[in-house]
Amino acid sequence: MRNPSILGRVRPASADRTLEEALAGYRPPHRVGAEDVDLTAAVGRVAAEDVVSPISLPAFDRSAVDGWAIASTDVPGRLRRGGAVHMGEQPQVSAGGGAAVAVPTGARLPDGADAVVMSELADAREDGVEIGQPVRPGANVVAAGEDVKPDETVIRSGARLRPQQVALLAALGVAGVTVYRRPRLAIVSTGDELVGRGEPPGQAQVRDANGPALAAMALQLGAEPVPLGIVRDDPDELLAVCRRAVTECDVAVVSAGGSVGEGDRTAAVLDRLGRPGVWCHGLALKPGRPTTLAEAAGKPVIGLPGNPVPALLVMQLVGGPVIGRVGGLADDDPPSARAGELAEDVPGAPGVLRLVHARLDGRVVRPLVARPSRLSVMAGADGFLRVPEPGFRSGQTVDVDLYL
Amino acid sequence: MRNPSILGRVRPASADRTLEEALAGYRPPHRVGAEDVDLTAAVGRVAAEDVVSPISLPAFDRSAVDGWAIASTDVPGRLRRGGAVHMGEQPQVSAGGGAAVAVPTGARLPDGADAVVMSELADAREDGVEIGQPVRPGANVVAAGEDVKPDETVIRSGARLRPQQVALLAALGVAGVTVYRRPRLAIVSTGDELVGRGEPPGQAQVRDANGPALAAMALQLGAEPVPLGIVRDDPDELLAVCRRAVTECDVAVVSAGGSVGEGDRTAAVLDRLGRPGVWCHGLALKPGRPTTLAEAAGKPVIGLPGNPVPALLVMQLVGGPVIGRVGGLADDDPPSARAGELAEDVPGAPGVLRLVHARLDGRVVRPLVARPSRLSVMAGADGFLRVPEPGFRSGQTVDVDLYL
Repeated sequence: MRNPSILGRVRPASADRTLEEALAGYRPPHRVGAEDVDLTAAVGRVAAEDVVSPISLPAFDRSAVDGWAIASTDVPGRLRRGGAVHMGEQPQVSAGGGAAVAVPTGARLPDGADAVVMSELADAREDGVEIGQPVRPGANVVAAGEDVKPDETVIRSGARLRPQQVALLAALGVAGVTVYRRPRLAIVSTGDELVGRGEPPGQAQVRDANGPALAAMALQLGAEPVPLGIVRDDPDELLAVCRRAVTECDVAVVSAGGSVGEGDRTAAVLDRLGRPGVWCHGLALKPGRPTTLAEAAGKPVIGLPGNPVPALLVMQLVGGPVIGRVGGLADDDPPSARAGELAEDVPGAPGVLRLVHARLDGRVVRPLVARPSRLSVMAGADGFLRVPEPGFRSGQTVDVDLYL
Repeated sequence: MRNPSILGRVRPASADRTLEEALAGYRPPHRVGAEDVDLTAAVGRVAAEDVVSPISLPAFDRSAVDGWAIASTDVPGRLRRGGAVHMGEQPQVSAGGGAAVAVPTGARLPDGADAVVMSELADAREDGVEIGQPVRPGANVVAAGEDVKPDETVIRSGARLRPQQVALLAALGVAGVTVYRRPRLAIVSTGDELVGRGEPPGQAQVRDANGPALAAMALQLGAEPVPLGIVRDDPDELLAVCRRAVTECDVAVVSAGGSVGEGDRTAAVLDRLGRPGVWCHGLALKPGRPTTLAEAAGKPVIGLPGNPVPALLVMQLVGGPVIGRVGGLADDDPPSARAGELAEDVPGAPGVLRLVHARLDGRVVRPLVARPSRLSVMAGADGFLRVPEPGFRSGQTVDVDLYL
């Protein structure tokens, strides 16, 4: 193979797979194992087990505002001052029976209270508290278990853990999680013209750009890069390195040195690597066509174009989802950019930018409206909408800011 | 302050700052220092110096296809076989004077050649090569310096280094880069009701969710989290911890325990921390209003809402750009989701999904059309367009897939 065929065979376009076909049909079954990590190290990792809440969240009825805890049956009317509840302390006083208890936002409701009246809506004087309006039971109260109930599944196995999930788990007192190992990505560059780092290139040689760039992308994708170096254009040598890649790693990428003939050479080697061999040889992408998708020992082995631009494009579009699946991700990560059509109206709020959680369902954007105390709703969202004062209409195309 | 004021002052909405005002006007001047890192550790970091190319890229004229290197003045006509060039080897033969030299994609052009004819368009027999059409000089040649010229600035100080930039630097033989240090983010949680990890909460206490979640978000934002723990609702204690935060770290966030009164309490402490003190007290966001933006010793100190949902929203929307700037980023990172209007037509390609680099300029999407050999164009793009067969029209709203 030192004399590459000049008459490189061009496969008919009809044999190429579309990106959608590849993402739907190329499904090597290998999955990485699991490990336990501390919650502080869990961000970006993929849950390997469901997490079930050990407690109610909140654990007790809390005030949603600074105000007066009362029995709703006592108002409207004039109430006596029944003392105060302090943050973090078990209430020493009771409401009801004509008494109003001062409570700060987030404090535990005292016995006898079933609602809280905002400070601004009460006329508090030294000798009592006048409340002019009727108050419904539960007003301004965040009820115990309103966000999460005991034994409720709060994280599904296969979910990517982001800061929003970390917040929920910390609130529940979950100190560690079982996550999938980071997939090990073997990176092989082939080509007689390539030199590695530190070597001075000869007059017809070029430096290997794909090796370092694919390692960088592996890190961005949550994988551990395993650089296996540069292999000459020799099928037996390449086969040996690929065998090692499939044995030691979870996913392998092989980028080749040229464009037409080279794709076929890599494909021939990948087909000898094991059953079922090459699944697809040629993607209907421009650039990016000379891509080979193969499977050996249940693991994905991807032959990438040699040119760094299509190599990185194909790595992001195909390698990203493949690494995600091998790494246990249940659904492909949402794409990095997304606009979609709103499934329902979202009203704005006067004088402010309203932020509303949203879930992406293909191109359908589903707003998730919930009071800000509900951590579990944030943890179930993909991102948020920036709703301007006039609001959004159902069917309108809107941007979603994905959660970090 | 053990007895928080129940009559928490609500600032008039007119005094609140909009998100845009805050991002434009809140500009503490502190910047982190620089350090040298190996190229393999550079991804996600911010360049602290311009990088100038030491070489031409490509370093020599290369063939863009598998084919025949010729002198364009020799065709159309029948040429004699002049041997072959092998990948990575200095050509031992010459083209021109009636000779055609076989070249694989990416190989160095032999002397005498100024164009390459694709294999498919030549009739190659044992005794010669028949080329029927005229060929323009430079056809199918990637010229030396076409992508990058010596001394050309390829990375600007303040740019975030992604795999695309790593590819370019590796191709140029740049083995290490000077980057800004990761900003150290001090994280303080305040509130008498909070307990930290491992402590069992009392009957009116809650676990600190903001501390772990903000540390997770710091990692996502490229910062180093420095957890300073939980501080009681005591202004002097909080002031002492904030002094330490501003001394030891580059940015500080303080999340408070409630909603109305607490925002004012944090703001009062932040105003005592140093000049110029509080820049803005109250953002026109819902949720997220009780946010304080302050500056001390030139460093940003952000008072976040106590509730984890608005705390994380404000951290992403305001803290992200602030950390980016302190960390040397010249332009705020593009938002995580983006659709925009195309600045010009982008034709599709028959039978394939065309991928075209794009730059985001506010809501204007500028396609960057270039041959795939041009690494520098990819490195200057924010992401790419997926162009369907019928193409896109100027003014059309399109999604941009951001580069990882």
